[in-house]
Amino acid sequence: MSSTDTKTHSPEAVKRASVVDLRSDTVTKPSPEMRRAMMEAEVGDDVYGEDPTINRLEHRAAEIFGREAAILVPTGTMGNQIAIKIHTRPGQEIICEERAHIKDYEMAMLAQFSGCLPRTVAGEKGIPTWKQIQRKIQPPTYYIAQTGLIALENTHNMAGGTVIPIETINDICDGAHSVKLPVHMDGARVFNASAALGKPVSEITKNVDSVMFCLSKGLGAPVGSLLVGSKEFIRMARIYRKSLGGGMRQAGILAAAGLIALEQGPKRLHDDHGNAKHVAERLADIRGINIDAATVQTNIVIFDVSGTGMDTADFARKLAEKNVLASGISPELMRIVTHLDVDRAACDHAVNMIEEICA
Amino acid sequence: MSSTDTKTHSPEAVKRASVVDLRSDTVTKPSPEMRRAMMEAEVGDDVYGEDPTINRLEHRAAEIFGREAAILVPTGTMGNQIAIKIHTRPGQEIICEERAHIKDYEMAMLAQFSGCLPRTVAGEKGIPTWKQIQRKIQPPTYYIAQTGLIALENTHNMAGGTVIPIETINDICDGAHSVKLPVHMDGARVFNASAALGKPVSEITKNVDSVMFCLSKGLGAPVGSLLVGSKEFIRMARIYRKSLGGGMRQAGILAAAGLIALEQGPKRLHDDHGNAKHVAERLADIRGINIDAATVQTNIVIFDVSGTGMDTADFARKLAEKNVLASGISPELMRIVTHLDVDRAACDHAVNMIEEICA
Amino acid sequence: MSSTDTKTHSPEAVKRASVVDLRSDTVTKPSPEMRRAMMEAEVGDDVYGEDPTINRLEHRAAEIFGREAAILVPTGTMGNQIAIKIHTRPGQEIICEERAHIKDYEMAMLAQFSGCLPRTVAGEKGIPTWKQIQRKIQPPTYYIAQTGLIALENTHNMAGGTVIPIETINDICDGAHSVKLPVHMDGARVFNASAALGKPVSEITKNVDSVMFCLSKGLGAPVGSLLVGSKEFIRMARIYRKSLGGGMRQAGILAAAGLIALEQGPKRLHDDHGNAKHVAERLADIRGINIDAATVQTNIVIFDVSGTGMDTADFARKLAEKNVLASGISPELMRIVTHLDVDRAACDHAVNMIEEICA
Amino acid sequence: MSSTDTKTHSPEAVKRASVVDLRSDTVTKPSPEMRRAMMEAEVGDDVYGEDPTINRLEHRAAEIFGREAAILVPTGTMGNQIAIKIHTRPGQEIICEERAHIKDYEMAMLAQFSGCLPRTVAGEKGIPTWKQIQRKIQPPTYYIAQTGLIALENTHNMAGGTVIPIETINDICDGAHSVKLPVHMDGARVFNASAALGKPVSEITKNVDSVMFCLSKGLGAPVGSLLVGSKEFIRMARIYRKSLGGGMRQAGILAAAGLIALEQGPKRLHDDHGNAKHVAERLADIRGINIDAATVQTNIVIFDVSGTGMDTADFARKLAEKNVLASGISPELMRIVTHLDVDRAACDHAVNMIEEICA
Repeated sequence: MSSTDTKTHSPEAVKRASVVDLRSDTVTKPSPEMRRAMMEAEVGDDVYGEDPTINRLEHRAAEIFGREAAILVPTGTMGNQIAIKIHTRPGQEIICEERAHIKDYEMAMLAQFSGCLPRTVAGEKGIPTWKQIQRKIQPPTYYIAQTGLIALENTHNMAGGTVIPIETINDICDGAHSVKLPVHMDGARVFNASAALGKPVSEITKNVDSVMFCLSKGLGAPVGSLLVGSKEFIRMARIYRKSLGGGMRQAGILAAAGLIALEQGPKRLHDDHGNAKHVAERLADIRGINIDAATVQTNIVIFDVSGTGMDTADFARKLAEKNVLASGISPELMRIVTHLDVDRAACDHAVNMIEEICA
Repeated sequence: MSSTDTKTHSPEAVKRASVVDLRSDTVTKPSPEMRRAMMEAEVGDDVYGEDPTINRLEHRAAEIFGREAAILVPTGTMGNQIAIKIHTRPGQEIICEERAHIKDYEMAMLAQFSGCLPRTVAGEKGIPTWKQIQRKIQPPTYYIAQTGLIALENTHNMAGGTVIPIETINDICDGAHSVKLPVHMDGARVFNASAALGKPVSEITKNVDSVMFCLSKGLGAPVGSLLVGSKEFIRMARIYRKSLGGGMRQAGILAAAGLIALEQGPKRLHDDHGNAKHVAERLADIRGINIDAATVQTNIVIFDVSGTGMDTADFARKLAEKNVLASGISPELMRIVTHLDVDRAACDHAVNMIEEICA
Repeated sequence: MSSTDTKTHSPEAVKRASVVDLRSDTVTKPSPEMRRAMMEAEVGDDVYGEDPTINRLEHRAAEIFGREAAILVPTGTMGNQIAIKIHTRPGQEIICEERAHIKDYEMAMLAQFSGCLPRTVAGEKGIPTWKQIQRKIQPPTYYIAQTGLIALENTHNMAGGTVIPIETINDICDGAHSVKLPVHMDGARVFNASAALGKPVSEITKNVDSVMFCLSKGLGAPVGSLLVGSKEFIRMARIYRKSLGGGMRQAGILAAAGLIALEQGPKRLHDDHGNAKHVAERLADIRGINIDAATVQTNIVIFDVSGTGMDTADFARKLAEKNVLASGISPELMRIVTHLDVDRAACDHAVNMIEEICA
Repeated sequence: MSSTDTKTHSPEAVKRASVVDLRSDTVTKPSPEMRRAMMEAEVGDDVYGEDPTINRLEHRAAEIFGREAAILVPTGTMGNQIAIKIHTRPGQEIICEERAHIKDYEMAMLAQFSGCLPRTVAGEKGIPTWKQIQRKIQPPTYYIAQTGLIALENTHNMAGGTVIPIETINDICDGAHSVKLPVHMDGARVFNASAALGKPVSEITKNVDSVMFCLSKGLGAPVGSLLVGSKEFIRMARIYRKSLGGGMRQAGILAAAGLIALEQGPKRLHDDHGNAKHVAERLADIRGINIDAATVQTNIVIFDVSGTGMDTADFARKLAEKNVLASGISPELMRIVTHLDVDRAACDHAVNMIEEICA
C-alpha cells in the first residue's frame, strides 16, 4: 500500500488528484496520523526549554544520530546557517561543492550573516574528494582569507540526489580534522542517503562535526529541521536560533508531527527511490530528453530538455497545462522529485504527459 | 466564563492547575478549538505562496490593519528584524526608547544582521515624544552615522505594558515623515493597546510604515507573528524571511490557530487587563513592595521588591517554591504578566503567595 | 619657545596666521623636522612586513607601552574597530561610556563591522566606575546578547578631555578580568592623560588588554595611529587591518613623521593643557557662557553657550567670521581644542573674539 | 634612461642593487622628486575636506577619467570594497571572473563588509564576455539571492595582466545597464591597460559606473588609490571611507607623491611591458618552464614550473637564494611583475638565475 492511500479522504487529496506535483519533496502534506498528533501534542514555552514534545523530538534525533544533543529549527536553511555561523568567524572561507545548496539557495546568508566566502570544488556528480578539497585550503598567509569550514551536502540536491560514499565522507573528515577544520553536513535528505546505502544515518554522519536534516521533505512533516552535534555546539545553536528569530514558543505542535516523520518517514523512502529510477528509465527513452538513468540514486531526477527544442520555462509551462508540475533549474535542465504524495501511477502519468509534450 | 475553563480536560490543564505561570503571556497554550483547526487545516508549500490557510491569515491581517499586505513569520523577533533590515542600510542609527525590546531582547540583531546602532531616548513610562526623538536625529554630516529609522513599541513591555497615546504616535509619524524617516511599530502587544484605548488597531497604527504583531502572546496562538505594511514592503519582507530561515513549508497548520487567535483573541484581553490591575492594586498594599498601581494599563505589572530585603533572584525562587512563576527583570524589579491561562482566582492565589513570602 | 614658532616660514603658517583653528587637534600640521624625516625615510612593502621605518615605529611603540607588539594603522577609527573586532563575536554587547567615540563618531562600525551593540553607562565627567559597568554585564541567559568587551576612552573627548584615574582603570580591569572580559582603551589622547597625571603611558595602560593611540592629534604627525597589545592580538590585527583596507605599502613615509611625533610630541602637551585651562578660566568670566573651569584637565574645553541666546551653529558662524574656528557638539555645547599650532597669544585672541560676539 | 637610474644615490637603491624584486609592482619606492614633493606638500584636515593637495589630486583624477568626482583612499582594497558596498545591498550576488582580486585577495570583505556572494564566470585569459555574465544573472525569484553588481578587473592580475578589449567592456556595460545592473572596474592597473591599448583611461572606462585605480603599483607612489565616479557615488564613498577607517587627516603628504605618479607614471609603463615581454620570451626557451609568451600583454608574467620537478615554494626559495624574488601563486604557477625599480638588465639577470636553477 502506498503511503498516499492513507489520505484519500482529506480535502487536499481530492484536489491533489488532479495535479501531480513533482517540483520538490517540500510539497508533501501531513498525514492524518500527524494531524492527530499535532492536535493532541503536549506543549510548553520552548524558549524556556519547557516544551515536552520538542524535548522528546530533540532527544530522539540525538539518539538516532548518536550525538550528544539536537535542536529543532523552522527550516533547513536556518539549521545550515546556524551551523556555519558557529563553525566560522567573519572573513573566512567555506569549502563546498560548486552547486551547494548553502551557496546557491540560502539567500547569500553565508556572506550576509556569517561574513564568509564560499570556495568551491567541482565534484564528480556533486561528490567532492578530499584531494580536491585539500587544494582549496588556503595557505597560512595573513593577507589571504583563511579556510574556516568544509561543508558537504548529502544527498546532493542539484547534482541529482547523489549519495556521498561513506569512505569519501570519512576521508574528508580525517583530512579536515588533521588540519583542524570542522566539517558540517547539509543532510536535508540524509535519510535518502541512508536508504540508498542501507546504512543508518549515525554511521554515515559519524565523523562530521554537525548535521542538519529535514523532517519536512521526504519524511513528510509539515515544518521542521534539526541540527545535531555536541552539547556545546547545540548550546551555541540555541543562541543563534534565537538571533535568527527561530525561537518559537509552543512549537511542540510541529514537533509532534516531526516525531512521526522521524520514526516512520525513513521506512518508505525506498518507494520514492524506486519511483525516481522508474521515471528516469522511462525518460531515457523519450526523444529529445537526455538523461543517464544509471546515475539516479535517490528521489531526484535531473534531465536535459534542450534536445526537445524547448527551454525549461516552456517545458515546465506546457507540462503544467497538463497538470504535472516540475522545476527548471537552468535553461536546459529540469528536475523531478518523487515523494510520499506521488505513487507509481502518478509518476507514470507524469511521464506520459512528458511524452506528449515532447511528441 | 473565563477562557481557561474551556481547557480543563487537556493533560496540560491538569498540570497547570498546580502552577500559576505569570512569567509572560508567551506561555499560553492553544485552545481545543485551535487544536481542531490545526488538525483540519488546508495546507500547501508557502515558499511557493501556495498555503491557502496562510494566505487567508495574511489577507485577514492586512484587512484588520487597513494595509495592502501582510506576512506570517515564526516569531516577533524575526518580524521586527526583517522590518529593521528593510527600512535601514548598514551603518545607520535607529532611534528607540532606551528599554526597547528590539534593542535589549533581540540578540543584538539590529547590529548583527542590519549593521545599525540604536540611539535611545528615555521616555516617560516608556513613551517617547517627537521632541525627544527629534533631538536624536543626526545632523547631515557625512562623518557621523545617519538616522535611518524610528522604532516604537506599543505596548511597551519593559516600561510595564504602557500604551502610547494615538496623538503621540501621530506626532512622531508626522515629524518623522517630514524629514523622510520611516517609523516601525513593534506591536507585539498592539491588541492590548487597542483594548486599553478602545480603538481599533487600524486607527492606532495608521500612520506608521510597518507593524509587527504577535499571535502567540495574549492572543493565544502557539506560534506566529505577522508583519503588515505596503505591498512593496511585504515583497521585501518575503526575501528577508527566507534569508533568516523563516520560509516554512506547510505552516498553514500554525496559521489555522493564528486565524482563531486573530479573530477571537482580542475580545478577551480586557480580562487580562482587569486581572493585572487587580494584582497591582493588591501588590500596592504589601509591605516592602513598591508599585504605582495607577500606571498599570494593560496586562503587565512591574514592581520593585527591594524593600523586602530580597533581590529578584531570591524573590522569584521563593515564589516558585510556592508554584507561582514570575520574572525578575533587574535585581530590583519583578514582572508579572496576565494572560488567558490565568483567571482572577489564579491571580489572587499568586498575590497570596507573594504576601506569604513578604511576610 | 612655542612649538609653532618653528614653522613660521612655511606657506601654511602664513595662511594660518589669519585663522585660529580650535576645532580639533586633528588639524595640526607636520613640522619641518617631520617633513625632512619623511623625505629621507627608508621604506619597503609593509604588507610583506618589509618597511624598516614602520617596523622601527611599531617596535618603539610597543616598547614605550611595555607591550609585546604594535601595528600602525591609518586612523584611530581603524585601530579601535580592529580591536573591537578581535575582542568580540557578532551578537555581543560592548560596555562603554554613553558619549564614547567608538559609539558616536565611528560610523556605527561596532555594529556594521563587528555586529555588536553598545551598552552604555553614564560616567561622572565621562569616567565610568567598575560598579556601574558591573551592573551592565549581562546575566548568562542564552536568549540575551552577552557582554563581550569593556571599552574605555582616555582622555574622554566628549566629556571634555577628562582623565581616568589609574586606580579606576585598574579596578575596572581587575573586575573585567575576574569575569573573563577583555578591556580595550581608546587612547587617542592617552599621552594627554599621561601629561596630566605625570605618569608614563605604560603605567596608565598596563592592565588593559589593548590600547589604540594617535600620532596625528596632539603629537602632531600628519597621519597615523597605533594599536598595541600582545603578539597574538597584533597578529590578528594585521588580518583585520588588511580587511579594512589599511594595508598600505610604503607607509614608512608616514612612520618617519610618526617616530618624531612619538618621541617629541608628548613633551609639549603640558603647553596645550596650560592654554586650555587659561581659555577655560577666561571663558568662565564671560556673561552667557557656562563652564566649570576646574574640570578642564587636558587640552579640551567644552562650554555651554545657551545663555548667550545663540545656538552653537550661530555661535560658530559668528566666531568663524572673526577667523576663529571652534566646533558645536550639540545645540548648546561648543568645544575648543588646544594644540601645537595655537600658542597662548592665539588662544587669547580666540577668547577676545568670543567676548566680542557675546557682548 | 631607465627610471631606476634617477634613484641611484638613495640608501635603498644600494641595497636593492643586490636584489631583483619581481614579486609585485607594489614594491616600488618613491622617486626623489616624489620625496621632495611630499616634503613641501601643502596640507590640511581632509576629513573636513581642507587638504589642498588631496583636493588637487582628486580633481585631477576626475579630470583624467572624465568623471564628476574622485576620492583618495589608502589602498586599492579599500577603494574596491567601498565601491562594492555602495553598489550593492547585503544578500546580493556580484558577478566577477573566477580569479578576481576582489574575491580572492581582499579578505572576503565582499562578504564580511557588504554581505554579498561572488558568482563567477571563467573568462578566456581572465576576460569575461557579456554572454557568460548574462547567464549568471539570477532570475527574479524572491527566494534566490539577486544579482547586484558586475565587477571587471582590468588588467586582470591573476590571469597574467591581460587587457579587456574596449568593445568587450562596452558590451558588458550595455548589457548590464539594460537590466539596471551597475558595473565597477577594479582598475588597479588600468593605466597598464591604457598603455597596452594606446587609448586614454577615459575612453577605456567611459561606460563603467565606477573605477578604482592605484597610484602605488606601476605608477610608483608609495601609498594611495583613487575611486572615480559620479558626484553622488563619491559622496557615498566619503561615508564608507570614514567607516572603514580611511579618513586620514593630513594625507596631502601622500597626495603630493600621488600627483607626480598620476602625471608621470603612465608615460613609462611601456618600458615595464617591454621588459615583461622580453622575460616571457626568454622563459619560453627554458626547459621545464611552460609559458605562452604571446599572451603577455602588460607587466605581469605567469609561468608554469611543474615541468622542472620543483613546486613553486621550492622554486621561489631557490631563486631567492640567488637574490631574485618572485611569487608562487599556486603550487605550479610563478608570477613575475616588472616595474620601475627593475630595468632590462635586472630582468635579464633574473632570467639568468632562473636558467641556473632550472639547469
